[in-house]
Formats: sequence, structure tokens, C-alpha cells
Amino acid sequence: MLNKLKILKEIKKHKAKKIFLQIPEGLKTKALDLVGFLEKNGLTVYLSAETCYGACDLRNREAEVLGCDLILHLGHSDMGIKTNIPVVYYEVRINYNPVPVLKKYTDLLKPYEKISLLTTVQFLSALEKAKEFLEKQGKTILMKKPNKAKYPGQVLGCDYSAAVEKADCFLFIGSGEFHPLGLAERTEKPVFFLDVEKGVIKRMENRLYRIKFAGIEKCKEMKRFGILVSVKPGQFNPNLAERIKKALESKGKRAWVLVFDEITPEKIMGLGLECLVNCACPRITEDVGLFKKPVLGPEDVKKL
Amino acid sequence: MLNKLKILKEIKKHKAKKIFLQIPEGLKTKALDLVGFLEKNGLTVYLSAETCYGACDLRNREAEVLGCDLILHLGHSDMGIKTNIPVVYYEVRINYNPVPVLKKYTDLLKPYEKISLLTTVQFLSALEKAKEFLEKQGKTILMKKPNKAKYPGQVLGCDYSAAVEKADCFLFIGSGEFHPLGLAERTEKPVFFLDVEKGVIKRMENRLYRIKFAGIEKCKEMKRFGILVSVKPGQFNPNLAERIKKALESKGKRAWVLVFDEITPEKIMGLGLECLVNCACPRITEDVGLFKKPVLGPEDVKKL
Repeated sequence: MLNKLKILKEIKKHKAKKIFLQIPEGLKTKALDLVGFLEKNGLTVYLSAETCYGACDLRNREAEVLGCDLILHLGHSDMGIKTNIPVVYYEVRINYNPVPVLKKYTDLLKPYEKISLLTTVQFLSALEKAKEFLEKQGKTILMKKPNKAKYPGQVLGCDYSAAVEKADCFLFIGSGEFHPLGLAERTEKPVFFLDVEKGVIKRMENRLYRIKFAGIEKCKEMKRFGILVSVKPGQFNPNLAERIKKALESKGKRAWVLVFDEITPEKIMGLGLECLVNCACPRITEDVGLFKKPVLGPEDVKKL
Repeated sequence: MLNKLKILKEIKKHKAKKIFLQIPEGLKTKALDLVGFLEKNGLTVYLSAETCYGACDLRNREAEVLGCDLILHLGHSDMGIKTNIPVVYYEVRINYNPVPVLKKYTDLLKPYEKISLLTTVQFLSALEKAKEFLEKQGKTILMKKPNKAKYPGQVLGCDYSAAVEKADCFLFIGSGEFHPLGLAERTEKPVFFLDVEKGVIKRMENRLYRIKFAGIEKCKEMKRFGILVSVKPGQFNPNLAERIKKALESKGKRAWVLVFDEITPEKIMGLGLECLVNCACPRITEDVGLFKKPVLGPEDVKKL
């Protein structure tokens, strides 16, 4: 999955000597082996032990403090974060053929003519195969270049703009419910999830819509709002937080701006907040149960 | 406990407008009230939601990124960390009279003539009262200025140099076992803990010595070492980590430098490490059970 020689070649292009390595959870078992290989080739490597959820989760400030001259960021694609130190985004691709599963579920997709195909960076080749197969079946396949993500059809936790609105349905190919759920929250149209691990296609429900709506209703009564800000470079938006604070105060609420590295519920226990507004990773808003209090998105504040 | 007017005056001295506020767990209930007060006085305040264990745990880089012009760090004393943004350390003092408890435990301290008194910054006034009382009882009270901490008799999690070696015993006055335990690990002499919350004095045992010794024995056989580095300004020591890595490799071990913000066990699960060497907060070494594998201090590596 990791082409170590190719990685080394990329590093050498930058003439880097001291590397800061970031690796997402799913690739951690390969991490120490890669570090050993790079060290044998004369490099110094610091391995970030922090979680790495996406390209937004770039630890460039830590790399700077450590005097590194390159960040090697595995498994995610460049989303255009500006840094003082160069970053090599090494995308990890998984070869997967979705055709057998698509054949099995031909009936499920029968009612839909125009299909918008979506995936994450590691399954982009599966998207190509699916496109070819479905077009042969007479479908019109819609794919577009997203706003923040890099490739046509690619989604990020904060970017579902690759979903083509005029499609009759959406088909996400990948692993884990995080992305197809995120998509289902953002559309009224059917969202199908081809689960590469289980080899099935299922339709996703928009489970959160009603919970979220109820959350907004509850917050109308509430007075003490916490505004969540993350210092992670790709999630950092203090100006939005300031605007939300003013908007809340104009509605007679009290609001405090809270700054996090990683956003977890226990960090705000004991502050006596009633409700949260999330100005960091948009997906935190969906971790409804976790915080045991309503978590609104910035766009919800005008509904209060 | 918090003199808000005094805090405001300190801030005004620095002509600061945008404040980054750090507050330890025990003061969190007072946090939002203080923020509200400062905002009413025309200041913008960002409240750090991250844990704040000591002055070492300074989030100056986050404050910089947010464009703040002052860090207000509550509850800890200055330990001399250099920063680009000024830091106001507002020490919180608790008025506590230890004499009634000392009277109750006169017999316990009877065998000891020279007593070294110790505490944390918030109970410094209790130290004065204890000194006066014990001297009247004929004891010789020893106190000295520590290396990193600011006041005679004051301890930090990483600095027990205020403990005067030639004493017959040590008496720590404060709250929680963290510090008296830390002291007990570092001396063969009796350590007494006057627990201000429970109103009792108990003798601390050095529980970790044997566990730690056994850990070193186990690590002799082990091959795969993780070296823990923290980016927290007061715990940051990558050069030590590099030296430890070389020392381990010269003993035929493999070693990887792991970089953390907050050091927690789940972040290194799945890496396949057998043993850890802690080059961050020295007290992590004592959280033996937490990591489910031996955690050595840097000084232990030469014993392998």
C-alpha cells in the first residue's frame, strides 16, 4: 500500500533531512516500518502520535517547532493549506473492483437514470470502474470537481460539493458510514453506499435531520452558548466564531469562544454551558450524542 | 479566589486587547464569569478548552495563531518559559490554616527534628503558618528556593528541588496525592502529606520503586522502544529524545521518536511498541498502569 521508494524519491526532491510524519489511524500499523526505512536512508523522522483525520489536520506548527524541513502527510490529498514548511501529501490508493457488487444490486439502482458517483481519495480507481460498468448499463454518470477536495467525485468530511445536484441518486463507494451519512444529511435524494468491506449496497437514511431540528428548538430557550473553535489549520475559523458570537448576543444569548486542539466533550465539562455552536470541522455537529447537549452548526444560529 | 479587578489591572498594564485565557481544571467553574467580566471591560477573550496542568502547559503558539496580544495563565507561577506574546501568570492563593491539623498529629512528627516544608503555589501562606507553629514546638524548619519553581518550599510536578536533603523528614501541605507521591519516589526519607481537604496527615509510601525496577528488567529483553516527546513549551525536549534514541540503538534496540500534544495511551495503540521512554513531563513515567507497558525515564536507559 505504501511505496516506500516512491516516498523516498518525493522527499529527496525537496532535499529534506528532517521529516515530520503524519499518518491516519488506518495506516498506523505501517508507520514504524516506514520510519525505519527512511532512517536507513539518512533521514531523521519524527512520527506524530496525534490523530490525523484529514488534510485539515495538519500539524505544521509542531513540525516547525521541531525544526523539520518537510511534512510527510500520508493518506490524504492536498486541500490547499498554506504552510511555511513544504508538505508532501502521499495519497494511498486501494485497488478495488466494485463491478461484482454493482451486478448483484442492479435492481436497486434500476429506477435511477442519472447517478452522481462519489468516493474518498483511496478508492478513486473504483469510481472509474463503476462509471464504465454503469454507463454500459445505460446510466448517465455525473461527476464534478469539488471545491476543497482535489479530484472529480472525491468527498471530504467538510466537502460534499462533488455531489451533482441534478442526479437522480448518489452512489458512494468506500469504507465506513462517515461519508455516506454526511452526504445523506445534505440531500433529500436517495444516497446509496457501496461498502467495499462488506460487499453490499445499502440506502442511507437521513437520521439526524429530526434530531438536529429538535436541537434548534431546544436552543431557542437556552442562554449559555459555547462556540467551538479548532486550531487545526484546515479547521481554523476564529472570524466565523466572532460573527456567531455577535449574532448570538444580538438575540440576547451569552456566548463564549472556546479554543481546542482536538474537540472532545470532557474538555468543556464543568463550564456550565447549555448549548454549543460548532465553528470547526462541520462534522462535529453530527456527533450529537457525544456532547450530551445540542450542537448547532453556524448556519443554525439564524434560526434561533 | 479570583480578584477580577486585579486581573483587569494587570491586563491593562500590558495594553492588551485580545486575551488568550488558560485555566486549570480546578478553576474551570469560575472561567466563564471571568470571561464575561473582561468582555464587559472591552476585551476580546478566547478561552482555551485544553487541559492546563501547569506553567509548562503554555499554549503560546495557539495564542499567536489567534492573533492574541496577551496570555492570561491562571493558577500557576512563572517558570521562565520564553514567549513572543507576554504572559500574565495570575497565581491563585488559598487561605488555609494548617495549625489545627498539625496539633492533632503532634505525635506523628515527634521523632523528627529537622523538617523540610513543601507545598504548591496556592498554599504558600499555609507554609508560613506551619513554619511558625512547628518552630514554636522546637523543630528546625528547612526551606529553600527551588530550581524551576518560584518560591521557597514550592514544588512542581517536575521540580522537587525545594526538598532539603539534610532534613529528617518532609512535610507536604496541599491537595491531592500527585505531589507527595512524586516526592516519595525521590527520597528514602519519610514523606508526610497534610491533606487540606481531608484534614489529616498521612505518611506516603514509595509504591513505584519496585514496579519501576521490574520495568527496567523487562525492558532489557525488549527491542521496540517508543520515545515520548511533547510539544508543550515547558516539556519540549527533542534533543534529549535524539540522545536517548542513539543510546538505545547503541544497545541494539530499535527506537522511534513519537511527538504528542497531550500524551495518552490510545494514541500509540497499534504501533507495536514494547516499551516507552518518556522525554516529556517526568511524571508520565509514574503513570505506570495507564500505558500497559513499561515506561522508563531517560535516566533509566543507561541501566538497560
